[in-house]
Amino acid sequence: MSEESDLDLGHDAGMETNVFRDPEGRISALWLERLRAFLEANRVDDVVSVVEPLHTADIGDVLEQLDPEERLRFVRLLGDRFDFSALTEVDESIRLEIMDALPNAAIARGVAEMDNDDAVYLLEDLEQQDRDEILSALPTFERLSLKRSLDFPEDSAGRRMQTDFIAIPPFWTVGQTIDYLRQEADLPDEFYQIYVVDAAYKVQGTVPLDRILRVQRSAKVDEIMNTSLVLVDANEDQEEAARTFERYDLVEVGVVDESGRLVGVLTIDDIVDVIQEEADEDIKLLAGVGDEDVSDTTLDTVRSRVPWLVINLVAAVLVSFVIGFFNGTIEQMVALAVLMPIVASMGGNAGAQTMTVTVRALAMRELDGGRLKRLIRREMVVGMVNGVIFAILIGIVTALRYGNVGLGVVIGMAMVINMIVAGTFGILIPITLDRLKADPAIASAVFVTTITDIVGFFAFLGIAGLWFGLF
Amino acid sequence: MSEESDLDLGHDAGMETNVFRDPEGRISALWLERLRAFLEANRVDDVVSVVEPLHTADIGDVLEQLDPEERLRFVRLLGDRFDFSALTEVDESIRLEIMDALPNAAIARGVAEMDNDDAVYLLEDLEQQDRDEILSALPTFERLSLKRSLDFPEDSAGRRMQTDFIAIPPFWTVGQTIDYLRQEADLPDEFYQIYVVDAAYKVQGTVPLDRILRVQRSAKVDEIMNTSLVLVDANEDQEEAARTFERYDLVEVGVVDESGRLVGVLTIDDIVDVIQEEADEDIKLLAGVGDEDVSDTTLDTVRSRVPWLVINLVAAVLVSFVIGFFNGTIEQMVALAVLMPIVASMGGNAGAQTMTVTVRALAMRELDGGRLKRLIRREMVVGMVNGVIFAILIGIVTALRYGNVGLGVVIGMAMVINMIVAGTFGILIPITLDRLKADPAIASAVFVTTITDIVGFFAFLGIAGLWFGLF
Repeated sequence: MSEESDLDLGHDAGMETNVFRDPEGRISALWLERLRAFLEANRVDDVVSVVEPLHTADIGDVLEQLDPEERLRFVRLLGDRFDFSALTEVDESIRLEIMDALPNAAIARGVAEMDNDDAVYLLEDLEQQDRDEILSALPTFERLSLKRSLDFPEDSAGRRMQTDFIAIPPFWTVGQTIDYLRQEADLPDEFYQIYVVDAAYKVQGTVPLDRILRVQRSAKVDEIMNTSLVLVDANEDQEEAARTFERYDLVEVGVVDESGRLVGVLTIDDIVDVIQEEADEDIKLLAGVGDEDVSDTTLDTVRSRVPWLVINLVAAVLVSFVIGFFNGTIEQMVALAVLMPIVASMGGNAGAQTMTVTVRALAMRELDGGRLKRLIRREMVVGMVNGVIFAILIGIVTALRYGNVGLGVVIGMAMVINMIVAGTFGILIPITLDRLKADPAIASAVFVTTITDIVGFFAFLGIAGLWFGLF
Repeated sequence: MSEESDLDLGHDAGMETNVFRDPEGRISALWLERLRAFLEANRVDDVVSVVEPLHTADIGDVLEQLDPEERLRFVRLLGDRFDFSALTEVDESIRLEIMDALPNAAIARGVAEMDNDDAVYLLEDLEQQDRDEILSALPTFERLSLKRSLDFPEDSAGRRMQTDFIAIPPFWTVGQTIDYLRQEADLPDEFYQIYVVDAAYKVQGTVPLDRILRVQRSAKVDEIMNTSLVLVDANEDQEEAARTFERYDLVEVGVVDESGRLVGVLTIDDIVDVIQEEADEDIKLLAGVGDEDVSDTTLDTVRSRVPWLVINLVAAVLVSFVIGFFNGTIEQMVALAVLMPIVASMGGNAGAQTMTVTVRALAMRELDGGRLKRLIRREMVVGMVNGVIFAILIGIVTALRYGNVGLGVVIGMAMVINMIVAGTFGILIPITLDRLKADPAIASAVFVTTITDIVGFFAFLGIAGLWFGLF
């Protein structure tokens, strides 16, 4: 029996070029090769037939796999059959590259077919002029609704929201609601709850779909609706909205404008992307890479990284001046130059550990009042304990290596000092940046390592100078 | 009018101790103080009355804000009125601390009230013996369903799934389905789609709730169901399942066992947590912190960080041997000791940039075939370009600072070499770890900085030795 089903699988797998993803979940090389051949030969119908069964997200993945020229050929060949939603699934650089190459009229035709939130996502990165041209080519209703979304601040809930939703009056019964849904042709593509609103579109309550299905037709909507309302302000930052989703395990939330009027809904799929982006941003800022991704060109990459490296160069030169101050000391005892990077490096590492924990805790809003004080205390104690542990370790190694107990004591003392400094500044720097309303992930790393480098070199060379009377 | 509503707000805000969250979204200090006073005075009814209106996630936040003794008092005071689901919302260390302090019988009573997936989440971290004791105190049905989930591997979809779901036969009509939902008392708390299964519980299709509400009662289920099925294997890693959710913008997905039988469902709220954890893990591994969080004790923190610092110490000592090799060179020209950290530091930074981009791209499965080759090429070119830019900068600065053009040329050459090495290894190390089935984020940072340190010092001191004839 097991052998039989293996054979069956073998048979299916025989038509390998038809298999889109390999067992690892990657796009199959053979499948891609076939698509490339079709593109090369301008075989429109074949391209359409292999692409048709794919989900929009898969088409996005395919676009990312193709070379830039192939991508354009792909989009042009499909023409009006190309689903522009696929562009919301690719890296920004690829999206802009494709949109720049297409005439605005073609983009407008594509945008007219899209959901409001996806359309905003495409349009918001375009130049003002292109954006206006595309908007003016759209039907009035779409144009106005897109314009309203685009009027909300960048990265706000209003930019991410979907403006299609179902709103009903509180005095309806469940039966009336179901009949309405059955008759109404123009419903959103997908929805998870229904909004109960008054005449001014102020939300009175929400009804999850499963609740509508559980109760009798005669039940009154205002008797089964949720009234402990969680709503999001359209002007609120998308990260705040994401935290609301996480905190209350939401799937959909209503978005209201300044006057409390329901203007749209946010769904979890948009929010998952926001959560991903936010974590990604933290990781990249900590490492000194801006908003870049693997599809960026060489030039864009250089441009995004040079500023961080310049800051690091300035810091490194500053540090070297500290060392230069001990020129004479080093001249009398070259072993100091050999050992000094150890103290600096350990401090840098310990500082990065504390800083990372702090940055993440700030990002997740975990540091309220009492917890912050406890964390500061803990990190200083951890710094001290680790300082003592590694002071003993490196002290013994150094004393043995140079047959010089004094040198072991000196490097041990410098180590304790630098580890405490690392713990203290590893927490204070991100917290200070946060208080100053800056992103705590930004530049924290450079600050922390500059301080641990300076303190590391200064403490070690200074204590050595005093201990051995080298000044 | 606006003034009037301001006044209204002012009036509400006057009863400050009743306001749970301050405008920043933090738990109000006054609210917390009041709770603490009630706890101190053992005023059970007051504690219940302030906690009752809160969402489970908010109770979790409250627990995190309290001191360890207050937490236990809180849980004990509430007794059977304490909702154990709140424990799924707190840091692991706090969860274990509370569970360790409670008798297993009390935990069993709490677990019996919980959703299956939340219960598994609580139980999986306990000692085998405690877990067995709690399970044996549960009603048979709950015990068997929890045992089955716990039998799946750690971090698998089977561990995260909810075993309550709605499955119907394909020959039902929409009307029959709605009648079934209205009559059935024991439905899951929340659900977003209905599963259409055959007699062996093999999934034939899925029907989102909104689709049931759109069509007439007479419509046949098998005519409106989705048949392009996305299902998750119960043994699959939760991260793989999370990627499936992201890729296809899912809200709920069916989980099947080896024989293709539907055994549970995963919902997006669990997956959001997985996505968060995964990104968090990457950030922390890159910085050399294990699975730790802000609530960990000092001892746990030391224990989690020491291994990373030991690895770094070994690397730093290794690097210092490389410098020791150039003892004589430094003795003849102390300026070299002053300048050498600059080359190493710039290489370390550039390496961290490349490494971070690579680690993230690997985590998001963005590096298939062609893209990987393009990325390697790009990073080497970026290394070269940045190498030249910073060689010129630091070369000029150094030549001016020491009035020695040769020294500027030497540091510039070392810089170019180290930046290319940084780009190359910044990408090769995480990719090699990934190929070896290790997490690319783990230890990548130590490897990369050790290499850029060694190459930085070796290239700079070596080229200087040759250039100035110091060997």
